[in-house]
Amino acid sequence: MRFLGIDPGLTRTGIGLIEGTTSQNPIAIEWLTIETAPTLPTPLRLKELSEDLAKLVEEYKPDIAIVERLFFATNSRSAMDTAEGRGVILLTLATHGIEIIEATPLQLKMSITGDGNADKKQMQAMVQRILKLNTVPTPADAADALALALYGLYTSASSMMPSSTRR
Amino acid sequence: MRFLGIDPGLTRTGIGLIEGTTSQNPIAIEWLTIETAPTLPTPLRLKELSEDLAKLVEEYKPDIAIVERLFFATNSRSAMDTAEGRGVILLTLATHGIEIIEATPLQLKMSITGDGNADKKQMQAMVQRILKLNTVPTPADAADALALALYGLYTSASSMMPSSTRR
Repeated sequence: MRFLGIDPGLTRTGIGLIEGTTSQNPIAIEWLTIETAPTLPTPLRLKELSEDLAKLVEEYKPDIAIVERLFFATNSRSAMDTAEGRGVILLTLATHGIEIIEATPLQLKMSITGDGNADKKQMQAMVQRILKLNTVPTPADAADALALALYGLYTSASSMMPSSTRR
Repeated sequence: MRFLGIDPGLTRTGIGLIEGTTSQNPIAIEWLTIETAPTLPTPLRLKELSEDLAKLVEEYKPDIAIVERLFFATNSRSAMDTAEGRGVILLTLATHGIEIIEATPLQLKMSITGDGNADKKQMQAMVQRILKLNTVPTPADAADALALALYGLYTSASSMMPSSTRR
């Protein structure tokens, strides 16, 4: 199964794709960021984000997408931008008929490191270790997206486990 | 020219369409709200919003869309929902090649009533008067959208004015 993790943004959206059927054997297929130029009008940036994501979805055919939930302490223009980008991401996934699950930052940290207070570096180091990568995955948004994809695998793997192994 | 005012939301998006070439003769063509069920998953609600808006745009062929800018004092789930809806609205308009202008609540109030502190009732009464409607336009979100459409007309009318009348 293919799990597509997405860390939403308008300027930069993290994308991480992994493949695996149990939590033992995940493989990182791809990680990157979709970027749009802040100098463009917002509607065109949203269109670019949607088109770039659509291309990735059509190429990699993920089974499930895991999209991070947003929480903002302040009401900034950039928070609104990110939420607008997230709306377009959810729409694009829904248009392609892809199942979507959401994860909060806390759920993500707990699932990857077992520590709800883990920082970016700890998260990146764990993602590298789990996926047996030679270096820490960069940029940070792509590493976050790989963590989201792993979260999707762990969540699904526990529900996919055959009943005989549940005793 | 046709001006499509849009007051963004996920649960309820106000839509107001007017026609006119100068600020003297605007006619209200249509006003309504696009609603999506809060019981549905967000991605499906965004899909419904996008599809319903696309149908309206294809039917009425507006020249310009005027989309209200969002400002939120608190970081609520509903603020995020609204911003996600707004992102999808901007994307849908951009996909249809429609020119988009944005208006802040203050710009809107100043333009319609000349009073930046105007309340909802004052705004609705002015919209009714300007568009010569028999009753106050409802629901409130659709009235807001008509006000946005008028803002679009006023903004464009002043730049469309022949130079001879500018003396």
